[in-house]
Amino acid sequence: MSLADSTFADSLAQAVQATRSVTCVGLDPRKASLPPAITKDLVTSGAGSADAWAAAYTQFCTEIIDVVAGKVACVKPQVAFFEQLGPAGCIALGEVIRYARSKELLVIVDAKRNDIGSTAEAYADAYMGAASPWGGDSLTVSPYLGEDSLEPFVKVCDERNAGIFVLVKTSNPGGGFLQDRKTGDETVYQSVASLVRRLNETRLGKCGYGPVGAVVGATYPDQLAELRAAMPTSWILIPGFGAQGGGADDVKAGFDDSGLGAVVNNSRNIIFAHQRPEFKDRFQDGQWQDAVCAAVDEMNQQLRF
Amino acid sequence: MSLADSTFADSLAQAVQATRSVTCVGLDPRKASLPPAITKDLVTSGAGSADAWAAAYTQFCTEIIDVVAGKVACVKPQVAFFEQLGPAGCIALGEVIRYARSKELLVIVDAKRNDIGSTAEAYADAYMGAASPWGGDSLTVSPYLGEDSLEPFVKVCDERNAGIFVLVKTSNPGGGFLQDRKTGDETVYQSVASLVRRLNETRLGKCGYGPVGAVVGATYPDQLAELRAAMPTSWILIPGFGAQGGGADDVKAGFDDSGLGAVVNNSRNIIFAHQRPEFKDRFQDGQWQDAVCAAVDEMNQQLRF
Repeated sequence: MSLADSTFADSLAQAVQATRSVTCVGLDPRKASLPPAITKDLVTSGAGSADAWAAAYTQFCTEIIDVVAGKVACVKPQVAFFEQLGPAGCIALGEVIRYARSKELLVIVDAKRNDIGSTAEAYADAYMGAASPWGGDSLTVSPYLGEDSLEPFVKVCDERNAGIFVLVKTSNPGGGFLQDRKTGDETVYQSVASLVRRLNETRLGKCGYGPVGAVVGATYPDQLAELRAAMPTSWILIPGFGAQGGGADDVKAGFDDSGLGAVVNNSRNIIFAHQRPEFKDRFQDGQWQDAVCAAVDEMNQQLRF
Repeated sequence: MSLADSTFADSLAQAVQATRSVTCVGLDPRKASLPPAITKDLVTSGAGSADAWAAAYTQFCTEIIDVVAGKVACVKPQVAFFEQLGPAGCIALGEVIRYARSKELLVIVDAKRNDIGSTAEAYADAYMGAASPWGGDSLTVSPYLGEDSLEPFVKVCDERNAGIFVLVKTSNPGGGFLQDRKTGDETVYQSVASLVRRLNETRLGKCGYGPVGAVVGATYPDQLAELRAAMPTSWILIPGFGAQGGGADDVKAGFDDSGLGAVVNNSRNIIFAHQRPEFKDRFQDGQWQDAVCAAVDEMNQQLRF
């Protein structure tokens, strides 16, 4: 499977079909939740340096990638947790992205970036496309600064077969503060969805989808159905499944009749599966990768509609 | 001047009074605009590695810091341009932040971060406060995800004498797409301003200002006046001065009667002063630092109301 000549939307469709999976594995390394098998040296030696933790994050994420490669279409590193280690974490992030791509996984860099004009260009240039410094396939972006702040990202989608996911309706309880505000008949999230649709629909790949996707939380299933209809050619990245409360029934409306059009992110319930009460008896500390494997198989099964 | 025991708002007030300057120097390194004195080896040796460019960015920014230290209250590194170099740029960013602090400049990290819950905590932990991995004094954040996404940043303001600047009314032409939308009598930017005011007003320092500030563009002077009144205890970071078109008259309304309450960012017209037509005859290539000095003196003069 060579993805280099394919648009991001087509690559994602191919990957979903090849793996029969709509699961996106969120790579959210957190010091306190890493398996003891990885952190025992760091814990016994005290707090550990940033370099040592960064090496642990790289090991943790690459081992997860080894488990999930071939089983899922994509992974989503959460940049915040890498940046929390300082520059050493940024080096680890670059290594993790490269490793995931080497295993034919599509990489959605979850950084929720945005800025104006030439600064937005710099973010797009940094993260999007195989030849970029970080080498992600796709980037999450925030729409608060308006259409002109999204255009540089869309331009780079065209130039590099990359993709973006624009925050439309986020999964958190307080997301409605701005997103649900209504002007006339239209909420803010509906306006953003219209913008996403407009930016996307002149750029469709063979699969019928384009590079400008949307983030819509599993915690708002009614809005997910509404937004699926409002953005019929946009891939939807659905966070909020699992630990945040969303289940399989909540995400169904995100898919088209062919089972395409959405990927569902799960971080904690997969990557920290060794901590799940029902898995604790099944897997020993040294078998945390087996717990990850069981968790991803379970989620894939739940989402085969 | 020891800032460690002082709140961010008080430190900024002290720094503005000590320097008699409300200028914030934007550190936006761009390959194509660096002075030839810094890039000549990179250009003659071809494209230059990311490490070589990162070293050039560090040299460029630290030399600017040497020029402006004591002349201005704060600097604002734009994270996008550092991230554009990949991990090497992140190392440079860390060095630049540390160097600026060592010269008693307050550092506003312009990263426009946001996310939900524990991910927002990770960003706050990464960037805010002297003891954080990056060591900034303050961070720009986006409000699209709502109040619960801002709370972790506010908490870290309290814990570490740090500050945030929430995007309220940005300087770009398209910012109004969401920000100017009206529900009843209130625009989105007015709602965000109310939230900023509420989060801030229980946290005031001796100077009468608190840690939760706002970003309001110089390109919207009427809204700046309105927002000054709507957030009477918030520091306002005003971008859009200079290259984006804002002038001294446009930013006047951002200040209180004592000349406090706002800092005005200028990037290109100061850091790339060597490219300004009126400076080209006055300063040789090897004197780019003198051009920076002249530009910052000029801006300080313009903003002494």
